[in-house]
Amino acid sequence: MTTDTQSVFKRDILSDKKNDKVSALLQQNLVNLIDLALTLKQAHWNVVGPNFRSVHLQLDEIIETVRESSDEVAERISTLGIVPDGRPATVAESSELATYPLEFVKFSETVTLSADALKTTIDSLRSAIEKLGDLDPISEDMCIGISAALEKHLWMLQAQEVA
Amino acid sequence: MTTDTQSVFKRDILSDKKNDKVSALLQQNLVNLIDLALTLKQAHWNVVGPNFRSVHLQLDEIIETVRESSDEVAERISTLGIVPDGRPATVAESSELATYPLEFVKFSETVTLSADALKTTIDSLRSAIEKLGDLDPISEDMCIGISAALEKHLWMLQAQEVA
Amino acid sequence: MTTDTQSVFKRDILSDKKNDKVSALLQQNLVNLIDLALTLKQAHWNVVGPNFRSVHLQLDEIIETVRESSDEVAERISTLGIVPDGRPATVAESSELATYPLEFVKFSETVTLSADALKTTIDSLRSAIEKLGDLDPISEDMCIGISAALEKHLWMLQAQEVA
Amino acid sequence: MTTDTQSVFKRDILSDKKNDKVSALLQQNLVNLIDLALTLKQAHWNVVGPNFRSVHLQLDEIIETVRESSDEVAERISTLGIVPDGRPATVAESSELATYPLEFVKFSETVTLSADALKTTIDSLRSAIEKLGDLDPISEDMCIGISAALEKHLWMLQAQEVA
Amino acid sequence: MTTDTQSVFKRDILSDKKNDKVSALLQQNLVNLIDLALTLKQAHWNVVGPNFRSVHLQLDEIIETVRESSDEVAERISTLGIVPDGRPATVAESSELATYPLEFVKFSETVTLSADALKTTIDSLRSAIEKLGDLDPISEDMCIGISAALEKHLWMLQAQEVA
Amino acid sequence: MTTDTQSVFKRDILSDKKNDKVSALLQQNLVNLIDLALTLKQAHWNVVGPNFRSVHLQLDEIIETVRESSDEVAERISTLGIVPDGRPATVAESSELATYPLEFVKFSETVTLSADALKTTIDSLRSAIEKLGDLDPISEDMCIGISAALEKHLWMLQAQEVA
Amino acid sequence: MTTDTQSVFKRDILSDKKNDKVSALLQQNLVNLIDLALTLKQAHWNVVGPNFRSVHLQLDEIIETVRESSDEVAERISTLGIVPDGRPATVAESSELATYPLEFVKFSETVTLSADALKTTIDSLRSAIEKLGDLDPISEDMCIGISAALEKHLWMLQAQEVA
Amino acid sequence: MTTDTQSVFKRDILSDKKNDKVSALLQQNLVNLIDLALTLKQAHWNVVGPNFRSVHLQLDEIIETVRESSDEVAERISTLGIVPDGRPATVAESSELATYPLEFVKFSETVTLSADALKTTIDSLRSAIEKLGDLDPISEDMCIGISAALEKHLWMLQAQEVA
Amino acid sequence: MTTDTQSVFKRDILSDKKNDKVSALLQQNLVNLIDLALTLKQAHWNVVGPNFRSVHLQLDEIIETVRESSDEVAERISTLGIVPDGRPATVAESSELATYPLEFVKFSETVTLSADALKTTIDSLRSAIEKLGDLDPISEDMCIGISAALEKHLWMLQAQEVA
Amino acid sequence: MTTDTQSVFKRDILSDKKNDKVSALLQQNLVNLIDLALTLKQAHWNVVGPNFRSVHLQLDEIIETVRESSDEVAERISTLGIVPDGRPATVAESSELATYPLEFVKFSETVTLSADALKTTIDSLRSAIEKLGDLDPISEDMCIGISAALEKHLWMLQAQEVA
Amino acid sequence: MTTDTQSVFKRDILSDKKNDKVSALLQQNLVNLIDLALTLKQAHWNVVGPNFRSVHLQLDEIIETVRESSDEVAERISTLGIVPDGRPATVAESSELATYPLEFVKFSETVTLSADALKTTIDSLRSAIEKLGDLDPISEDMCIGISAALEKHLWMLQAQEVA
Amino acid sequence: MTTDTQSVFKRDILSDKKNDKVSALLQQNLVNLIDLALTLKQAHWNVVGPNFRSVHLQLDEIIETVRESSDEVAERISTLGIVPDGRPATVAESSELATYPLEFVKFSETVTLSADALKTTIDSLRSAIEKLGDLDPISEDMCIGISAALEKHLWMLQAQEVA
Repeated sequence: MTTDTQSVFKRDILSDKKNDKVSALLQQNLVNLIDLALTLKQAHWNVVGPNFRSVHLQLDEIIETVRESSDEVAERISTLGIVPDGRPATVAESSELATYPLEFVKFSETVTLSADALKTTIDSLRSAIEKLGDLDPISEDMCIGISAALEKHLWMLQAQEVA
Repeated sequence: MTTDTQSVFKRDILSDKKNDKVSALLQQNLVNLIDLALTLKQAHWNVVGPNFRSVHLQLDEIIETVRESSDEVAERISTLGIVPDGRPATVAESSELATYPLEFVKFSETVTLSADALKTTIDSLRSAIEKLGDLDPISEDMCIGISAALEKHLWMLQAQEVA
Repeated sequence: MTTDTQSVFKRDILSDKKNDKVSALLQQNLVNLIDLALTLKQAHWNVVGPNFRSVHLQLDEIIETVRESSDEVAERISTLGIVPDGRPATVAESSELATYPLEFVKFSETVTLSADALKTTIDSLRSAIEKLGDLDPISEDMCIGISAALEKHLWMLQAQEVA
Repeated sequence: MTTDTQSVFKRDILSDKKNDKVSALLQQNLVNLIDLALTLKQAHWNVVGPNFRSVHLQLDEIIETVRESSDEVAERISTLGIVPDGRPATVAESSELATYPLEFVKFSETVTLSADALKTTIDSLRSAIEKLGDLDPISEDMCIGISAALEKHLWMLQAQEVA
Repeated sequence: MTTDTQSVFKRDILSDKKNDKVSALLQQNLVNLIDLALTLKQAHWNVVGPNFRSVHLQLDEIIETVRESSDEVAERISTLGIVPDGRPATVAESSELATYPLEFVKFSETVTLSADALKTTIDSLRSAIEKLGDLDPISEDMCIGISAALEKHLWMLQAQEVA
Repeated sequence: MTTDTQSVFKRDILSDKKNDKVSALLQQNLVNLIDLALTLKQAHWNVVGPNFRSVHLQLDEIIETVRESSDEVAERISTLGIVPDGRPATVAESSELATYPLEFVKFSETVTLSADALKTTIDSLRSAIEKLGDLDPISEDMCIGISAALEKHLWMLQAQEVA
Repeated sequence: MTTDTQSVFKRDILSDKKNDKVSALLQQNLVNLIDLALTLKQAHWNVVGPNFRSVHLQLDEIIETVRESSDEVAERISTLGIVPDGRPATVAESSELATYPLEFVKFSETVTLSADALKTTIDSLRSAIEKLGDLDPISEDMCIGISAALEKHLWMLQAQEVA
Repeated sequence: MTTDTQSVFKRDILSDKKNDKVSALLQQNLVNLIDLALTLKQAHWNVVGPNFRSVHLQLDEIIETVRESSDEVAERISTLGIVPDGRPATVAESSELATYPLEFVKFSETVTLSADALKTTIDSLRSAIEKLGDLDPISEDMCIGISAALEKHLWMLQAQEVA
Repeated sequence: MTTDTQSVFKRDILSDKKNDKVSALLQQNLVNLIDLALTLKQAHWNVVGPNFRSVHLQLDEIIETVRESSDEVAERISTLGIVPDGRPATVAESSELATYPLEFVKFSETVTLSADALKTTIDSLRSAIEKLGDLDPISEDMCIGISAALEKHLWMLQAQEVA
Repeated sequence: MTTDTQSVFKRDILSDKKNDKVSALLQQNLVNLIDLALTLKQAHWNVVGPNFRSVHLQLDEIIETVRESSDEVAERISTLGIVPDGRPATVAESSELATYPLEFVKFSETVTLSADALKTTIDSLRSAIEKLGDLDPISEDMCIGISAALEKHLWMLQAQEVA
Repeated sequence: MTTDTQSVFKRDILSDKKNDKVSALLQQNLVNLIDLALTLKQAHWNVVGPNFRSVHLQLDEIIETVRESSDEVAERISTLGIVPDGRPATVAESSELATYPLEFVKFSETVTLSADALKTTIDSLRSAIEKLGDLDPISEDMCIGISAALEKHLWMLQAQEVA
Repeated sequence: MTTDTQSVFKRDILSDKKNDKVSALLQQNLVNLIDLALTLKQAHWNVVGPNFRSVHLQLDEIIETVRESSDEVAERISTLGIVPDGRPATVAESSELATYPLEFVKFSETVTLSADALKTTIDSLRSAIEKLGDLDPISEDMCIGISAALEKHLWMLQAQEVA
């Protein structure tokens, strides 16, 4: 077993000090992204109402993006020689997202809850991007790419809230 | 909001009594399958050692099967008019799988832990199959199909344990 | 020309007695499925209103499933050496589905009429499944597969009725 | 509910008078094409004899063309703002095609009955083409395209009758 | 540089007199089609409200048809040896379409404005078709094909206006 | 080396007693399926006469199904921790199929011999299905799927025998 | 053997008189199109000079169009029940195209000779289109489609002659 | 209707002040990119001379990149809650590109005019990139990606000018 | 213009003497292969009788092989710097194949005439292969590959003659 | 029924004497290749140990090559008009390969046994290649192609034996 | 011929001074990347031992990334109007990578040597990224993208070194 | 480490004496082919002038062939149990190709230099083919296949030199 902030591998990508900071930033976003995928699946299964089919399909498109993003973040942590933690209990405890209600949810509330979950995830990514520039340009660029895609999805969700 | 065992929809597939039993059986398997996918991802990211690449790829193939299966089970519950629950806290609390260690894990231990997780999931599916025959042949057939695929994956994992 | 219940082929799959019962059960479902495809096409062409595009596309996805199912049922009857009957007059006379109205139909009514047609078809399949278990496990398994797919489509239709 | 000959939509493609004539011509061909698809499926399931496989496959190729054509005709009627009618009872009553026999049919008779059904459909399309030129060049062009494809299929069927 | 109505090429497809009339008819439709694509993109970006996603996707499907059509028309003019003019200023000046508003537009108004733009384009194509029959059957057939596709798209837009 | 009826793996899917019965049933069908593929290849290479091409192609389609089936059965035996035996000598000795003649074979005899071989294989599968229901629902479901496909192929072969 | 102008088939598409005229028009174009494909292949193999690669590829794209067109014309003649004649000696004798020189040909001369061959083929198609309108709208529409494609190819060849 | 610089949506990505500056920078580039696509299409249709085919194909490849880029920029503006303006009159008025001549244009002049249009677009993107770094790293990264692709296309155009 | 046996290119693949012999052998086979493709197309269009569809499809598969082969041979001649001659008059004069009859031809005669044409082509290829071994191993290997494919096609044709 | 060494077809590819020798050489290789495919499948199902997955996948890639090769050899024998013999008893009796053990086999022994089986097959092919050069260049070239592929597979197996 | 640091093209992307620095940085990375691809191919061909297949496949995946990267870097230098130098002698002289041994190399040493080569390449890219930010954001972004991909590959190699 | 001429593997394909000669012939061609790919890439990046795009694309097509060929040759050497040497220094020292100039090169000179490089590679392959016939028919056949493809590419390059 290894500690979390010193690389387990022979060849270090970053210094130990930077590794400590970068991996902490990425770990928080990893947990958020895993929670986001599970939350949007919950929404995908339980939405009801006239626009059911449209948002049901839209959520699966977002989930595909989110799953690829969480994999990308976790593998970046591994690349730095640190253990990423994406276990259910860790996600349940340390995610910044709100808990999704346990019921069938109408279209408009589904859109609002899903957009809120995306916004929380984006805020955390934006915060990390500001700090990563001086630590690791490659992790920074990865987070910019992920946030760009989520922000576009946010537009396509919240455009539906304008009555 | 609806209660869990009476269908929210106008047209019932099963009687309320059967709905109660079937949905409870499926909910437990849903939680196990979601946990299984997260656990195998954890294994996929943190495996180390000479056979890293082979098991890294193998785990992603199993995860793809598991994700399709959890989606299939959740949507079957929704089809019965009941709310499936796949939220992180629910998974963390009610899954029957063991917690994966937080460290880089060698090849042979990775195989053993992953095979154990699969076996727990299969046991729960097998138990449900025995009870579903009299309740809902369609849910039974779905669980048979899922267990068949997981049992084949189990073979291809535990064949690697024979030294 | 052959009678309907004795196989025309040299090698019998089932005994004549079982053939009689199995083919009668399958023939009724064949007629329902052909009617279902024509009825959903009628709905697909004549739906109007704000959600036109979503249900227009959804109906074509269901129709694809239904057409494959009616082909599968008819070819199972032929496999048993019996003549399946899918001619327009037979369908018009012996189908259990309600007649679709001859007019442009609004979104919500389209959903309701289509869901009703699916439910009638599923009920007949469910009834056949109960009887086929002792007669022919292969015809039973085929009907389970068809009903499973239609029940999922039913969910995605009637979820739109929850206001 | 709307009358059949005045467009239900705000923007008319054709004048009401032309709409009346064009939609009547298309409706007859729609019914024939739906019957043709069902009739050829009946032939596809019930053909027997040494050339079974060849004509079984050939009929499915023709059916694919016919189904696309009936969809195209029905959607053209809808485009004109008129309700197309493709319901089983309507097809059974107003189609111009002969009734297919209820029995297993030998190869050569299958070819002859299928070619006859195609010829009846083509004659009706040819008759419509002559009238549509002055009414609606777009409906005319659509019918020319459909008849062209069916005439080629007719060749490939009746070439098999030359002993 | 060439004049607009005499072919620049060695081999003439049409006489100079016909070239003059045909190219003028096609040039007006070219400008309309380019404007239509830009107008529908404007609608695609700025639609808001519950049905956002459906019409957002639908508009991109129409735009793909329209872009292929404008390319087809421009290349037909070039084939006749005449210079097609699809520059922004020409489009802004000579298009027959109304100007799209500069704001976020609700679903129902988006549908109405887009259907109006399609109808204007179709009217111009229909008018050209009437004149092209005696001038150039190939340009006539091309315009019939383009109008047929746009008329089908118009149906699928204005069906959404029926409340 | 292991004995045949006790699983070689750490985690048992079935009890030893069930393993003994299930693996014996599957082993007989494995041998039949391997022989069936070789026999149909022999037919595929040596058919002659006017319908050569049709049956030559048809046999390869059946062989593809049969090869996938034998692989599926063998891997199910391995999944149970038992050694499947598909070696040439075992196939030659224990298969239930008749020996194919060593000569060029005319079309009609090819059809009859191939249909006979399929029927023998189906009878053995049907017999196993009856016994597997109480032993292992997953092996039962697998055999139902395999027999369903072979029965359809049998129809398409013996339909050619009806003169 | 049959005469050329009376259909060999049981069901006539056209009257004998029309068949005579239509098949004569199509036969001349068939021969031209076969010659065009062979001539452009000759050009494709023997072009030399700096632009070799561009025109070598362009000619193969045209040949693909031409081959599909000659097949379409020949099968239309067969559809009418008449024997199409595409044998080398017939092509050599009755084609209207000029003979291609037997030598390596420079780029600019290759473009000119190929464009000339296309123009001769188009002139013959245009002449047939004028006559086919009253005889057979389906053959007319087919020739319009073929000439449209060849005229576009002609543009892309002769645009290269403008120095 | 909304003003241009305050987001219309509930959840802001950027502060209003940054939104004002970012959207203005993106709007200018949007207009340039739309004009670039129309200008290159004009070039694509009207190029003549021996290298016609090569530059005709090359321009369509560039246009595909440019269209995807203008869509990306417009949707980024919408994501910020601002109305992008891509209407023909706006493009004609505010684009920074030179007007393309209305005539058939020789190869070398086509290359020069197209390269000039690309260079103008790149200069504007480069200028925006310098300012966006402090305003919005995601918009900056998007513009870097677009300019990178256009600069590569510029190389492949102006490499053709070196005599 | 060049003479036929001295390479037109700067870099010779073979000596002039070998070039003379190799190109003469290849030219004869080129002419045969072009004639074979035209002859089989003639057969493809004019076959009639119960097996029409099977041989109609089979001939197109052979024609595809033959066209690729003639292209390969012609381009090998060009590679040697010699002008290949595939013009219709040359084919009509110097091909070794028999003339196909001008009539609708029954199935069995179609098979016999097509197999004869293939055999003539193969004999010429076999004769060339014997001589090419000492002249040019690459041309020899190309002819072996072509003859191998044609011999397999010959089998699948003449297997149909065995009554 | 035919004798083995005189072609059953009307058109001989080889003389009877050559046919005798060539078909005998090919028949031995056919039997070896069929046995090789069955043997490697046996290995594929029964391999165990840490490298299970890698060799399991590798064996299926080799089997695909081997199956295509045995089909190619058998069809070459048929092309010569001789009956190929690939029946299980013939394979069991006349194959030159060693019998595979009936047990779960460890990785390294699996590699060694599979490489031995490949080497035996290659030796037989190499021996045939030496004799076929004077008998039939096309059969020789086919065997060279098959051996080339198997020799590459042998490398990728025995490279794993180097400790 | 041009000097290396002044653009050969009419339109400069960067100032001459920046061009000098940027192109020097890119040239060193180009040489490293070309050497890396050749070195990994050497490893790919000469690896031996039980894990041969896994690392053999893994190296080809890395090589594909590396080749695309070297092409991207070279074309960026060309885009700046400078001559990239990727000739073998230049690579041999100026690459920073160690020389690979000339022998068959065991699995673990292959992994170590390949990971070392990747690390050297990454260090050079990281060093360039630090300097490129002020010189050319587009070259900087390109190097970030390349290093990100190589760092992930490095993880998947050195994870295999952890015993 | 191994010597170069004795196989490192347990099962020899060739005798040691043949291995010595064959591997030396293949090693020289391996080096030439690697140099050819690098040289043509250099040409691909640095070509300028009006035909830039055509030859830029053509060179990448040739490079794809060349890279596959060098891989094929290297893996053939490995198959013989010998270490292939494709390291940059070895290529720089022992390749027979001329050094490509370090500058932007005009179209016609690019064609000439590339054709020269191909011709040198072909001459070496042709020389090896003559010697390999008696040593190893499989290596001979591989070199024939590679030279055949390069000779065709040479034609398509030097056809552009004919002014």
